[in-house]
Amino acid sequence: MATRWPTLIEDGNGLLILDQTRLPREAVMLRLVSLEDVAKAISVMQVRGAPLIGATAAYGVALGLAEDAGDARLDHILAMLAATRPTAVNLHWALARIQRVLQKSAPATRCETAWNEARTIAAEDKEANAAIGKHGLPVIERVRRDDGHAINVMTHCNAGRLATVEHGTALAPVYAAHAAGVPVHVWVSETRPRNQGLLTAWELAEAGVPHTLIADNAAGLLLMQGKVDLVIVGADRIAANGDTANKVGTYLKALAARAHHVPFYVAAPLSTIDFACPSGAQVPIEERAADELGAGAVPVANPAFDVTPAVLISGIISERGIAAAGALEQWTS
Amino acid sequence: MATRWPTLIEDGNGLLILDQTRLPREAVMLRLVSLEDVAKAISVMQVRGAPLIGATAAYGVALGLAEDAGDARLDHILAMLAATRPTAVNLHWALARIQRVLQKSAPATRCETAWNEARTIAAEDKEANAAIGKHGLPVIERVRRDDGHAINVMTHCNAGRLATVEHGTALAPVYAAHAAGVPVHVWVSETRPRNQGLLTAWELAEAGVPHTLIADNAAGLLLMQGKVDLVIVGADRIAANGDTANKVGTYLKALAARAHHVPFYVAAPLSTIDFACPSGAQVPIEERAADELGAGAVPVANPAFDVTPAVLISGIISERGIAAAGALEQWTS
Repeated sequence: MATRWPTLIEDGNGLLILDQTRLPREAVMLRLVSLEDVAKAISVMQVRGAPLIGATAAYGVALGLAEDAGDARLDHILAMLAATRPTAVNLHWALARIQRVLQKSAPATRCETAWNEARTIAAEDKEANAAIGKHGLPVIERVRRDDGHAINVMTHCNAGRLATVEHGTALAPVYAAHAAGVPVHVWVSETRPRNQGLLTAWELAEAGVPHTLIADNAAGLLLMQGKVDLVIVGADRIAANGDTANKVGTYLKALAARAHHVPFYVAAPLSTIDFACPSGAQVPIEERAADELGAGAVPVANPAFDVTPAVLISGIISERGIAAAGALEQWTS
Repeated sequence: MATRWPTLIEDGNGLLILDQTRLPREAVMLRLVSLEDVAKAISVMQVRGAPLIGATAAYGVALGLAEDAGDARLDHILAMLAATRPTAVNLHWALARIQRVLQKSAPATRCETAWNEARTIAAEDKEANAAIGKHGLPVIERVRRDDGHAINVMTHCNAGRLATVEHGTALAPVYAAHAAGVPVHVWVSETRPRNQGLLTAWELAEAGVPHTLIADNAAGLLLMQGKVDLVIVGADRIAANGDTANKVGTYLKALAARAHHVPFYVAAPLSTIDFACPSGAQVPIEERAADELGAGAVPVANPAFDVTPAVLISGIISERGIAAAGALEQWTS
């Protein structure tokens, strides 16, 4: 992993993030040195992926406290970062966590405390995702074919290492399988309108994992043709009842997987579960700009997420193990 | 309709077709004067839409016979045109029909006979689609809302007038509703990888029908949110048992419509029904070039069609009326 582009590194004065709006054309690290830099990077999706957004926002709090760490400034920082993306709950989870820590600390020490808490959040993300890989590996091995052919895993959007500090969520079990010598091939859906599937193809190529890009529309046919053994996706917010908000188009894959009796798993760290949100109906769905479709003056609707009902989910893989989507309360203690 | 761009006109020496690869950027009529011109226009999708391909191919036979109308030449013409697109059956239906007529005619009169038969096929397409509009109108009126709001019809790809000689198939009932003063709004899915949804938006704008473009991925969310009253799509080949091959992505919409108890109709002329094809499993699925996804050197799979099982189809609307997808044999007599 040493030679791979990192998604986020920091030096106590600023962050370097891999600019995901320029991938896969070019890999460029972007330097963020202020609260405003971080808020913009999250809004325009230079940084994206629910877990990575959470860690980046935490560092954004630290950067924002550099010159003024008073209560009013802290409130301003938290409000500005919270407003960047509404659906992914990891952002709000990270901000609430850092707020709890900072409330106990005097303004003079807040900036350093924020840096330390952000580092802890980032380190925990790596650990959680490595654990997701370990827990998810048997899910892949279970659909192993007798004929020795590669196991065909379908995913959606990018829930790989680019969406996290390291390892990925949906792709963590894939990487674990690849490392264990289990032959695996990934169906990568383009993920219109932002084409994050190209990010997934880029990082799978970097890791040497066989993969094939498809139009989002092709998922149903491939499932009907028996060319998919397993679907694993990430999540932006999992409600207490297991309903899962993820990149728009996830729900269509879940319906098609169910129609063809193919297991459909969600992989996400505990920070993605919003126990305060009773069901998917309460998840706010971000509506993004019309120009993302690139269709000129045509009237456009552009919801960025959809909700997959818990009943369509075979299991949720977190750092704690695998739970039925309807039985997440076991992870509250 | 007089001021609208025609999809196909002819003068007995050549065809003018609206180049659909340049829409919606620019409306340009392209002149086709040879068999080779026609075969290329169909292959590269300058002409597209199952019914329009059928009519255009018929004219292609006439153009091909201009200098040599012998049996060997006729065989060559039919083989070249048949090889352009494998899935849409209207192409093969039109070629078989013109072949039957020409077999009864001496080489000296074949060219003129072919022109006349092509004109008949084109004229019948207009009539059939007008009848589809008439038969489909009650399907739209049936989901009319008490609140006076527009009826939300979702479609996929372009099965409008651009896919036909005139009137469209899936959009024929929409145009009939619009003409009858029934308020209607169309959800237009982008239809990756070729983006034929932009053609649908273009022709709906030209006709003054309210519409909104969405990424294909958004269809499930809109259905879950109750924002779709009815789905109508076209077809490229309907098997004898009602299984329907249509543009890839159709099946995902059918699954989502069923999950939310929204009617899902297929509109197509009888020439789209292939009674010789027992079920969807026997429909050849065209695999198109990887570069249609525009992703550079990434490995790509690009199937152009999928199959929606008859069980998910509320009814098939043809020029004969509306039939249950599982009861098409009533139209064989």
